[in-house]
Amino acid sequence: MSVYTPVSRKQLESFLTLYDQGRLIGFCGIKAGIENSNFFVTTERGEFVLTLFEKLAAHELPFFLRLMAHLAEHGIPCAHPITDQKGDYLQRLNGKPAALVRRLRGESPRDANLQHCRAMGHALARLHLAGRSFSGHHDNNRGYEWWLAVREVLHSRLDRDDAQLLDAELQFQRRDRFGDLPRGVIHADLFRDNAMFVGDKLTGIIDFYYACNDVLLYDLAITVNDWCGEPDGGLNAQKADALIAAYNQERPLEPVERRAWPVMTRAAALRFWLSRLYDMQFPRSGQMTHIKDPNELKTILIHRIRYASAL
Amino acid sequence: MSVYTPVSRKQLESFLTLYDQGRLIGFCGIKAGIENSNFFVTTERGEFVLTLFEKLAAHELPFFLRLMAHLAEHGIPCAHPITDQKGDYLQRLNGKPAALVRRLRGESPRDANLQHCRAMGHALARLHLAGRSFSGHHDNNRGYEWWLAVREVLHSRLDRDDAQLLDAELQFQRRDRFGDLPRGVIHADLFRDNAMFVGDKLTGIIDFYYACNDVLLYDLAITVNDWCGEPDGGLNAQKADALIAAYNQERPLEPVERRAWPVMTRAAALRFWLSRLYDMQFPRSGQMTHIKDPNELKTILIHRIRYASAL
Repeated sequence: MSVYTPVSRKQLESFLTLYDQGRLIGFCGIKAGIENSNFFVTTERGEFVLTLFEKLAAHELPFFLRLMAHLAEHGIPCAHPITDQKGDYLQRLNGKPAALVRRLRGESPRDANLQHCRAMGHALARLHLAGRSFSGHHDNNRGYEWWLAVREVLHSRLDRDDAQLLDAELQFQRRDRFGDLPRGVIHADLFRDNAMFVGDKLTGIIDFYYACNDVLLYDLAITVNDWCGEPDGGLNAQKADALIAAYNQERPLEPVERRAWPVMTRAAALRFWLSRLYDMQFPRSGQMTHIKDPNELKTILIHRIRYASAL
Repeated sequence: MSVYTPVSRKQLESFLTLYDQGRLIGFCGIKAGIENSNFFVTTERGEFVLTLFEKLAAHELPFFLRLMAHLAEHGIPCAHPITDQKGDYLQRLNGKPAALVRRLRGESPRDANLQHCRAMGHALARLHLAGRSFSGHHDNNRGYEWWLAVREVLHSRLDRDDAQLLDAELQFQRRDRFGDLPRGVIHADLFRDNAMFVGDKLTGIIDFYYACNDVLLYDLAITVNDWCGEPDGGLNAQKADALIAAYNQERPLEPVERRAWPVMTRAAALRFWLSRLYDMQFPRSGQMTHIKDPNELKTILIHRIRYASAL
């Protein structure tokens, strides 16, 4: 169960008086999610998700909340945050920064089919295009500097194989090698559990809390690595082709991006291998039951190193 | 009481087997400190402070721990972190990143006298000089970008006077106005409660967890604002002269720094006024009893605006 901060009916009723969404009908905690406390909330005016932020600080949240609103207003299927009576997206509840967003229908696909992959390709490109008119800026705090910082705290805790692979890949992924690639707002964590479908229709992209300004192609590589993977770490060529072709229809990839693709898929695998290794060594309280296996991503990384695929 | 994460005798005994500091004799929680859980620990080999980091993540800590070690090795009175048997400063205890540092003697002065001010001036300049040979780098994450982010979440919550003062001062303190000032590693939070004295002798500078690379003069302004203040927000000229003269003996201030002084004392006051306003609106759990009055810093800011003092 991922609800860290409990919320009582009385607290929630009082919280809802700050909004114009009518009175509380019912609510319950949501099990999914590792970093926040989430609740389904039904009021007289609709169905919502209430998030209490356990890790992000209040001053970090306007970027994410304004981005979600901006994307929703530009036709990207994602949850629109609700303003309170003062016009703020951000409130406080039980000592935590809190936000109310409109609830989306659908479920995350366990196995992605070709339709899912196509839908993700279109949506990701449109997200990148819509990001061009967004005024906020947020550096990627899971970028190269973070990779080095994590390497420093992990190094003495890794076995020899992992330490060697990590150091070799960090050496390969040198800082600032992507200066010439198109940049913009990226989701940066668009795994299957952060998208919802009803049938083959994408109904929502969620969890924008790693969104940042970075290389657009990196976002595509993160998405392809997860949605188009085979159990052995390899890529399913049909799915990858479908996702990338759909992306390319909305935002045609530039030659410089096509050349960078093999390196980028490795960078995307490295980033999540690192974060999973790190969460294993330094789990946050309450996170224990949600730790994901780092070796899945290590396998993907090794596969991308051995079998670089061209675009 | 500021111990958020409890530690049992058994946990601590097991933790100490990772170090070469002998067996546990005794320990107790420390009340001071807002952001970490701290314990006095006595072993067969000495007296230590154990810190469990409640807010900082493991990957952020090597910068601070290596900086403390570097400064201690360069004669700055501060706590030297202890390495474990693998040579790491960082460990884990009860689910939290944890570090053991040598315990320093002394107490924080409630009222600073001229000797205290002189000692702080000398120590701060020597800290800045010793920082030149430190290889780590950490951006100031309480700098101008943070000021703007905090303004965004505070704005609708401030009364009109405060909102106007804040906006006017942010306008005055434009980004990037200090490009020509000497930079380096700064403590960035050297208030009286972060220094310890035995009599008039400085025995330790503590709490390096806001240390970063930034303008050296900003560090001096933060220090002078706190150590040389009068209850009405004004500066005690004798104390300020003593602290700055001592600093100047170790690292002579450049003309460009002298010109920037009036603006810098305002920037230093603004930064802490903002963080206190923010902590009032978004207190972290456990922090409630430690919230400091934002108006102290507002008074200082208003005084610095009205009575700019030359260097």
